[in-house]
Amino acid sequence: MTKVDLKSFNNDWFDHGAGLIIRGLWYLFNAIYLNSYIFPFSGLKKFWLSLFGAKIGKGVVIKPKVNVKYPWKLTIGDYAWIGEEVWIDNLDEVIIGPNCCVSQGAMILTGNHDFTKSSFDLITKPIVLEEGSWVGARSTVCPGVKLGSHSILTVGSIATKNLDPYGIYQGNPAEKIKTRVISP
Amino acid sequence: MTKVDLKSFNNDWFDHGAGLIIRGLWYLFNAIYLNSYIFPFSGLKKFWLSLFGAKIGKGVVIKPKVNVKYPWKLTIGDYAWIGEEVWIDNLDEVIIGPNCCVSQGAMILTGNHDFTKSSFDLITKPIVLEEGSWVGARSTVCPGVKLGSHSILTVGSIATKNLDPYGIYQGNPAEKIKTRVISP
Amino acid sequence: MTKVDLKSFNNDWFDHGAGLIIRGLWYLFNAIYLNSYIFPFSGLKKFWLSLFGAKIGKGVVIKPKVNVKYPWKLTIGDYAWIGEEVWIDNLDEVIIGPNCCVSQGAMILTGNHDFTKSSFDLITKPIVLEEGSWVGARSTVCPGVKLGSHSILTVGSIATKNLDPYGIYQGNPAEKIKTRVISP
Repeated sequence: MTKVDLKSFNNDWFDHGAGLIIRGLWYLFNAIYLNSYIFPFSGLKKFWLSLFGAKIGKGVVIKPKVNVKYPWKLTIGDYAWIGEEVWIDNLDEVIIGPNCCVSQGAMILTGNHDFTKSSFDLITKPIVLEEGSWVGARSTVCPGVKLGSHSILTVGSIATKNLDPYGIYQGNPAEKIKTRVISP
Repeated sequence: MTKVDLKSFNNDWFDHGAGLIIRGLWYLFNAIYLNSYIFPFSGLKKFWLSLFGAKIGKGVVIKPKVNVKYPWKLTIGDYAWIGEEVWIDNLDEVIIGPNCCVSQGAMILTGNHDFTKSSFDLITKPIVLEEGSWVGARSTVCPGVKLGSHSILTVGSIATKNLDPYGIYQGNPAEKIKTRVISP
Repeated sequence: MTKVDLKSFNNDWFDHGAGLIIRGLWYLFNAIYLNSYIFPFSGLKKFWLSLFGAKIGKGVVIKPKVNVKYPWKLTIGDYAWIGEEVWIDNLDEVIIGPNCCVSQGAMILTGNHDFTKSSFDLITKPIVLEEGSWVGARSTVCPGVKLGSHSILTVGSIATKNLDPYGIYQGNPAEKIKTRVISP
């Protein structure tokens, strides 16, 4: 059977969305200020994310130890929360809607590989968290997945396909277990 | 349908169990000494945890990179082990019984949100690990869950409800797969 | 029923594979250079791993924040990739074959305990990732498991038993969901 040959891997075609110097600078800023405990509060972290191109709404909360790959591919809506140790591995666009909660230890994963090719080509797909959706603690959203409005991915679950609006999903792969009803 | 409105979130009622200065100091101590690789051994870490109010038994082992939210809400029984990169996110009381093992990368999660309310109210619930129970590597114990005496939560599993004494549980949500028998 | 007694735990018999000073030095090197963001590139990290006894092939890529317990028990084949925040907890031998990909946040776990003994004895078992296998992001390979050639452990899955060559496995415990076919 055919084998993988990572020597033939080539992602020269990939659009990082920023040049080498900007990426190097962000690597430093992320390691020192964002993905650390230096700043417990959100203010300066939001300033730096914005400076590097992130679109950040008002009232956004960003906890310590957040790891963001490329801020220029990140949008966070009004009053959304990004929890401690959240990992936004956004090689592709990530759009976090208003009033979303991404809980502690969750991962937003946009990168994949074509495992049917011996060159193991990089595949990236955007992720959209629609308004009011909740990515539970230590759960993972896979590339290309959309969390419908107010959907919930429960603790430690893995979203491999889209979540219906107001659906509550659990497991690996995450399956719908019930419907969310919100009282005013 | 009704939407979430995180602007209306309010946790002023919440009892952190310590004032702002103590919490700020612990934030620093945790980041520098506990949740780091500075001290490979347990001694000084146990001293600081105790100084900030944790009740720690004798013979307790605490590995590096342990993240504790509020030591004044933590009890660790005699000869219990806390593994590398364990995250004790104890907004509420966490009681770890004697001879318990919390393995590397595990999470003790006490915080939740009322997802049926547009104000997404904070809910915290205590966690109890009874004597001799084992929280497996990279597993997660959810708010309010009690691990019965000598129960086991296997690697990467998510405990969403109580575990029976001497029960072995696996999966997300964790289900009982067999019974633990211990020979002398 | 019989209880666990961690006071009676004894791993004096265990062969760490290196003396206390070497282990202490590696603890430092790992914390400062490997398991950090100091070096974004692979070169120096591979040099140090090799200096401490790891066998590392050509073209190997090692991302930042990789945590290696004992380099003298580690073999990495040609053109293999070790992703960001990969945790190789190798108390026992870990052999990563050529062209393997261990994705970001994955864990290679070689340590276990005999939960049928009150002394909770340490058990370690080697792990082998055969050529071209892929350990998905945030997945975990349990002690003694062999990933067959070109097998895939999907995102967040837990491999508790061997994976067949070219098999794709998902869940906790990971079950085979399909077969991998690679076109040239």
